[in-house]
Amino acid sequence: MSTQVSPLAPTHVPEMPAIAGVKLATGAAGIKYAGRTDVLLALLDKGTAVAGVLTKSKCPSAPVDWCRARLKRGTARALVVNSGNANAFTGKTGREATAFTAKLASKAAGVSPNDIFLASTGVIGEPLPATKFAGVMEGLVSDAKADYWLAAAKAIMTTDTFPKVATATAKLGKATVTINGIAKGAGMIAPDMATMLAFVFTDAPLSVAALSGLLKANVEDTFNAVTVDGDTSTSDTLLAFATGAAAAQGAPKITRATDPRLKAFAKAFNTVLADLSEQIARDGEGARKLVEIVVEGAVSKASARRIARSIANSPLVKTAIAGEDANWGRVVMAVGKAGEPADRDKLSIWFGGIRVAHRGARDPSYDEAVVSAAMKQPVISLKVALGMGKARDRILTCDLTKEYVAINGDYRS
Amino acid sequence: MSTQVSPLAPTHVPEMPAIAGVKLATGAAGIKYAGRTDVLLALLDKGTAVAGVLTKSKCPSAPVDWCRARLKRGTARALVVNSGNANAFTGKTGREATAFTAKLASKAAGVSPNDIFLASTGVIGEPLPATKFAGVMEGLVSDAKADYWLAAAKAIMTTDTFPKVATATAKLGKATVTINGIAKGAGMIAPDMATMLAFVFTDAPLSVAALSGLLKANVEDTFNAVTVDGDTSTSDTLLAFATGAAAAQGAPKITRATDPRLKAFAKAFNTVLADLSEQIARDGEGARKLVEIVVEGAVSKASARRIARSIANSPLVKTAIAGEDANWGRVVMAVGKAGEPADRDKLSIWFGGIRVAHRGARDPSYDEAVVSAAMKQPVISLKVALGMGKARDRILTCDLTKEYVAINGDYRS
Repeated sequence: MSTQVSPLAPTHVPEMPAIAGVKLATGAAGIKYAGRTDVLLALLDKGTAVAGVLTKSKCPSAPVDWCRARLKRGTARALVVNSGNANAFTGKTGREATAFTAKLASKAAGVSPNDIFLASTGVIGEPLPATKFAGVMEGLVSDAKADYWLAAAKAIMTTDTFPKVATATAKLGKATVTINGIAKGAGMIAPDMATMLAFVFTDAPLSVAALSGLLKANVEDTFNAVTVDGDTSTSDTLLAFATGAAAAQGAPKITRATDPRLKAFAKAFNTVLADLSEQIARDGEGARKLVEIVVEGAVSKASARRIARSIANSPLVKTAIAGEDANWGRVVMAVGKAGEPADRDKLSIWFGGIRVAHRGARDPSYDEAVVSAAMKQPVISLKVALGMGKARDRILTCDLTKEYVAINGDYRS
Repeated sequence: MSTQVSPLAPTHVPEMPAIAGVKLATGAAGIKYAGRTDVLLALLDKGTAVAGVLTKSKCPSAPVDWCRARLKRGTARALVVNSGNANAFTGKTGREATAFTAKLASKAAGVSPNDIFLASTGVIGEPLPATKFAGVMEGLVSDAKADYWLAAAKAIMTTDTFPKVATATAKLGKATVTINGIAKGAGMIAPDMATMLAFVFTDAPLSVAALSGLLKANVEDTFNAVTVDGDTSTSDTLLAFATGAAAAQGAPKITRATDPRLKAFAKAFNTVLADLSEQIARDGEGARKLVEIVVEGAVSKASARRIARSIANSPLVKTAIAGEDANWGRVVMAVGKAGEPADRDKLSIWFGGIRVAHRGARDPSYDEAVVSAAMKQPVISLKVALGMGKARDRILTCDLTKEYVAINGDYRS
């Protein structure tokens, strides 16, 4: 496993303010790792609304099944997350482990097990030793405090090399409300789903419908627009919690995502999701380059997305970028294999803002030295203009390095 | 570029017999490589029928466009193949290069340019210096001889570490006819298409319709069932030529692929395609393991194929196999992300014939030591039983190693 922090890690980690109605605690249950925290408890005040986006995998983890069943109610009082074991592909044992964990938390926190949300990340296919939570749960409940966000982000890491936090504030009515988010990523990350695990909290008084609507509107261009390896996890979970505590400061209660009073909040909410999802790309396993792929001139946004994804998931494009090679031939290949409307002879391609290919052939002004210099940057922008229509899309990914192979050839054992 | 021969290379290279009506020559035109052959000419007797399967890429190479236009005629007199440059994404220059090459060959061989087939493999996006063929074409025509198959296979290699040849014979009527094939593969190899380049020759007297029918019937479970990296080439070309010379030995003329007299021939034809396509998986860039993926119990063959492909193209499954880790959790992930009918709790998984997971959880009899020993073998069989229906499919692939990243991070420069 990699011990070095990704060179793409953000240089600035924000101060994470408290969110009224949320208390956090972390502990070391010894699920898999030694000498580190591996369990996070978030306690949520009465009246907290919850919305979520879960993996579309046909083989979801037991905690995903658990959350899916409880999201229909829309109320939350606690979140329990562990790292080291995904409790996925664990059959009846896995279902029992979720029920047992919820029961422990329910008893310790004095809330209904149906208001407890669960997430697990780590190895797939090994039974989760949930009994280990018994030794820590009471302590977590009594220790929980408001200013513990970075520690919370650390407790849910697996092959992540840095904790992922993001925060923003927005005016809602006359009150200033806060949005905090934490996430973990690293590998088994693909778009079209939520990421592995991300949790967003706010004190804004939003109904379940408003929160859910906001989440769905903003996930498509943030978490769903990130891919590390095209491998969609069994555990992808993005949950958003709104405690409503800001109502006491005069924030209006919002019941619809389309309420015009939500405009500033929606923007801040998007900022937090975009920030967290970019951090996931920046911490892709073995990543040395953050790659922004923009496809424009497509016949539709869906078509642009499919082409962008084909480029972003191509091992040949990703290894070329790792080798600092502006290999537009492989981009042409990835456009061609996407199966979407494209015309070779209308295609133009830019690396780092420099046009390397124009209308189906190498750009006449192509200068290898200039392009090579651009490819040495840690952030690479790759733009494709299809010349077929007016739609555009953007995806974030990272390069494919020997380190990715090393991390993943040696993860389970 | 890798200079070591793949450890998965076949230990036995067959003697390649002559095929009446086919003569071969290779030369060094200096397209890109120094000190090796890079151009192959095959001369075909009058009356040769041709059929082909070409890439479905929306950005095909100029030679693919050339062949597609000429396949409608169904007659062939020569094949010119070069390595070192794919003549793909080369615009007008690329089209001119194909016309120029065909004209050179036409003049040297005294045949119509419309009976000349072209294929190019190598770097994408660089103009092909076709004028370099002018220096060698006359010599190729005069040097061409019948027993030059291994040299032919060598001339078309790029990052391949060994030449790929296969041969078979079959009774057709009272005559014994021969089928010879050569191929090149290595990277940018994905199913659902032909492979990069493969050429099959026979002296059997088959009509274009019969040859084309045979090709389409046999490509699906051979070349289209191989993936190295999921990256479909712009240049995928599989051409089959039937000279008809065996008619002189009493082989009957066959006009339909469904003719019952073709039974033995069809079997031998399939053997050659299967052999060549397996060699492509065995020479996948950086490959250290040949992996056979069998999916059974699917609702349809197409569904089994999509699930097998999802497993075969998963970087996490491929790196686990490189690490000799029977990581069934990643197989579950790949089944889940395929989006095809699957039920986690009915899923069973075998590595190397050993059942590691049964009905949605780790197999009760799982023994890490036994499975680890199986994973050390150079050929790994991975079977998934879905328990949803009766359909089955099979795909060949290879592992994803640091060597793949090294080869592809350093190919163009």
